Amino acid sequence: MIAVERRLGRATRAATDRPAGAIGPGSAGLAVTRYYRFAAPPEAMQLESGARLGPITLAYETYGELAPDGGNAILALHALSGDAHAAGWSVDPDAPSAVDGVGADEKGISARGGLGWWDGMIGPGKAFDTTRYFVICSNVIGSCRGSTGPASRDPSTGRPYGSAFPLVTVADMVVAQRELLRHLGIERLLAVAGGSLGGNQALQWAAAFPEMVLGCIPIATCARLSAQGIAFNEIGRQAIMADPHWRGGDYYDGPAPEQGLAIARMVGHVTYLSQTSMEAKFGRRLRGKVGYSYDYSAEFEVESYLRHQGHSFVGRFDANSYLVISRAIDYFDLGAQLGGGSLERAFRGVPASFLVMSFSSDWLYPPHQSREIVAALEGNGVDVHYRNLRSSYGHDAFLLEEGRQTRLIRPFLRRLRERTRKRAFPSVAIGSPDVSS
Amino acid sequence: MIAVERRLGRATRAATDRPAGAIGPGSAGLAVTRYYRFAAPPEAMQLESGARLGPITLAYETYGELAPDGGNAILALHALSGDAHAAGWSVDPDAPSAVDGVGADEKGISARGGLGWWDGMIGPGKAFDTTRYFVICSNVIGSCRGSTGPASRDPSTGRPYGSAFPLVTVADMVVAQRELLRHLGIERLLAVAGGSLGGNQALQWAAAFPEMVLGCIPIATCARLSAQGIAFNEIGRQAIMADPHWRGGDYYDGPAPEQGLAIARMVGHVTYLSQTSMEAKFGRRLRGKVGYSYDYSAEFEVESYLRHQGHSFVGRFDANSYLVISRAIDYFDLGAQLGGGSLERAFRGVPASFLVMSFSSDWLYPPHQSREIVAALEGNGVDVHYRNLRSSYGHDAFLLEEGRQTRLIRPFLRRLRERTRKRAFPSVAIGSPDVSS
Repeated sequence: MIAVERRLGRATRAATDRPAGAIGPGSAGLAVTRYYRFAAPPEAMQLESGARLGPITLAYETYGELAPDGGNAILALHALSGDAHAAGWSVDPDAPSAVDGVGADEKGISARGGLGWWDGMIGPGKAFDTTRYFVICSNVIGSCRGSTGPASRDPSTGRPYGSAFPLVTVADMVVAQRELLRHLGIERLLAVAGGSLGGNQALQWAAAFPEMVLGCIPIATCARLSAQGIAFNEIGRQAIMADPHWRGGDYYDGPAPEQGLAIARMVGHVTYLSQTSMEAKFGRRLRGKVGYSYDYSAEFEVESYLRHQGHSFVGRFDANSYLVISRAIDYFDLGAQLGGGSLERAFRGVPASFLVMSFSSDWLYPPHQSREIVAALEGNGVDVHYRNLRSSYGHDAFLLEEGRQTRLIRPFLRRLRERTRKRAFPSVAIGSPDVSS
Repeated sequence: MIAVERRLGRATRAATDRPAGAIGPGSAGLAVTRYYRFAAPPEAMQLESGARLGPITLAYETYGELAPDGGNAILALHALSGDAHAAGWSVDPDAPSAVDGVGADEKGISARGGLGWWDGMIGPGKAFDTTRYFVICSNVIGSCRGSTGPASRDPSTGRPYGSAFPLVTVADMVVAQRELLRHLGIERLLAVAGGSLGGNQALQWAAAFPEMVLGCIPIATCARLSAQGIAFNEIGRQAIMADPHWRGGDYYDGPAPEQGLAIARMVGHVTYLSQTSMEAKFGRRLRGKVGYSYDYSAEFEVESYLRHQGHSFVGRFDANSYLVISRAIDYFDLGAQLGGGSLERAFRGVPASFLVMSFSSDWLYPPHQSREIVAALEGNGVDVHYRNLRSSYGHDAFLLEEGRQTRLIRPFLRRLRERTRKRAFPSVAIGSPDVSS
């Protein structure tokens, strides 16, 4: 453990000249993204599809210190376009911020500057209090944000994978993260937590590796995506694949399919907001004029906003990763994968406590999908707390409603931590990894 | 009137060899689309934008007979992708049907065969009973379905308008339709009726030409589109304009921007359906297989459905018309246009009776937008009946919930018709048209 602490400590955070004033007392500080490489052939990881992937790099960050008893580790998991940089400020002041959209606007966050995507939730005194907990945020495989994905070098050709990158699932993402935890010496997690795809991963963690998870906090998520959700993902993919620069996925030696990716992002953004919040923020306001110009320029504020979101996204994301990760979201169906078609069966014997949260105006992952999870957990007698929080922010609320989530998460984590302190935190032998020769 | 009746009578309907069995007793029969041409330069029509357009052709169809007192004329108005062919069967058995999507599937309507888009509502014994009423359906300017639009020949160049086609508004569409009615000898309308954009037109008719409209039936519509509605329209437009075949709108001498248009249609389709109806119809069902194939093929039924809808749409619609008409939908704001910012003021002095309908699961034109219309009408003491019909069909319900709309529309029309019979139907002089030299 000591070795881990040293490796992950705050020492390196001074290696920057970011002005001290930028980092307040509630900040996780300057954050360094680290990289763990594993599954090098012939030890490549077997994916759910049957394909093999290796070597694999996972980008991750950590905040806080691992307790001597190892009982305070929390894994934070990100959504479609997120990354390992969840909290604090990147050491690179020009790094993109994964916080964008309404959330960024309302907090005055600029597209560059490197603020972590869940900074409002992770830091000293915050929901995931880094003075108490050791928080790890792991990127997912398939991503373009430092982990192995379609833009990575395919060792069999020496060129980027492109179309040769195998599709991955949420289960694959979680298996890879388990390898990272093993590397970090973490045998058990006080909690897994995340919103949206991060919530999918949290559920997968709790159900697939029950011996490793004490608490699970799935937020604004589902056990399986709706037909409408698949439809919107498919529209985004069609927009990317229709871009002539996509070239079947093998575009890394030329221009990227930026227009297609921008359109996919525009679709995503609309589904992340609620009608109410769009009406409040934009309404029918025209952009700097009183009358129509009768053309296809961005006349309405909402058009200008969406175009801006689409075009700024292409600067920090890869179209093939968007395809891969959106497909993993479509595929996720916990009941089908682990319960033979029954979500209740998928949770059978799961010992973790759950804190499930949804948001009243989230129409992409509507509250009834969270209630479906809660019912399946209750069917197994699992300890589960559920709150549908009233919010007008839509799906993005898991990034914005910090205060209200904090008031639920903080006592939930404290209770869990007390439990680990009362009885000696049991050291569980981790089974053989899914990395085979 | 007699001349009009002869011109529009059923005589020409025999000029086809469609099997008689295809046309049941409730059918409006074989329908012929007719074309009225007007506003030839120097009499070109001045548009709301200030641009001039002419000559203008409007495609239209009529069903039933105009009564000797002229008091039974009803104008039916179509949505974004509709056309003049509202009822009965086209004389061309290969004509595309504008009925598609869930509605077509559930009724067993094929993409070809020429069934009118509101055939369930217009015909002998139907809501708009063609044994009682003379129903006119007019296409809109900007369309590609027989009326003057971007694909039409620009008389100043001899080539298709393309990028030179001026943007039109709902007000322009209605002014052009007024010219058609004048040509048909119709001085007054018993009712104007339509869903979605058709409802926008109906509202515009009642407010802009109050002396011509006795009854108004706006369905699943709004007085001004929401920010979310504009956003989805904008995404569709971006998809079209990103297609390299679009070429700024001047593509008529080459391949059409079919991929972009297909994506725009996919976006539209998702917004026309409800989450509930998508879940019931598709859920997460895979297409003819039990497991994932781990690729980007149409694995889920809902993907296959959307792709099919997108690709069949490009066979009957022009991308530039999609741009023009979707922009007209964005621009429509009755309160801003006729009420100085107040919808209530826009309806001041409107004598028509209103039957307003919305659908509980319509999230594109949600019920509160209809209630906004109703409140503005009530503020003027207008005779208004409002019903929010429970339906799971989403926005498409105005094409599908025939029985429930019929039960409201039929007595509404009968009352109006009785009114016109009790007092002699007043002949109102039609003011000078907005066609100037």
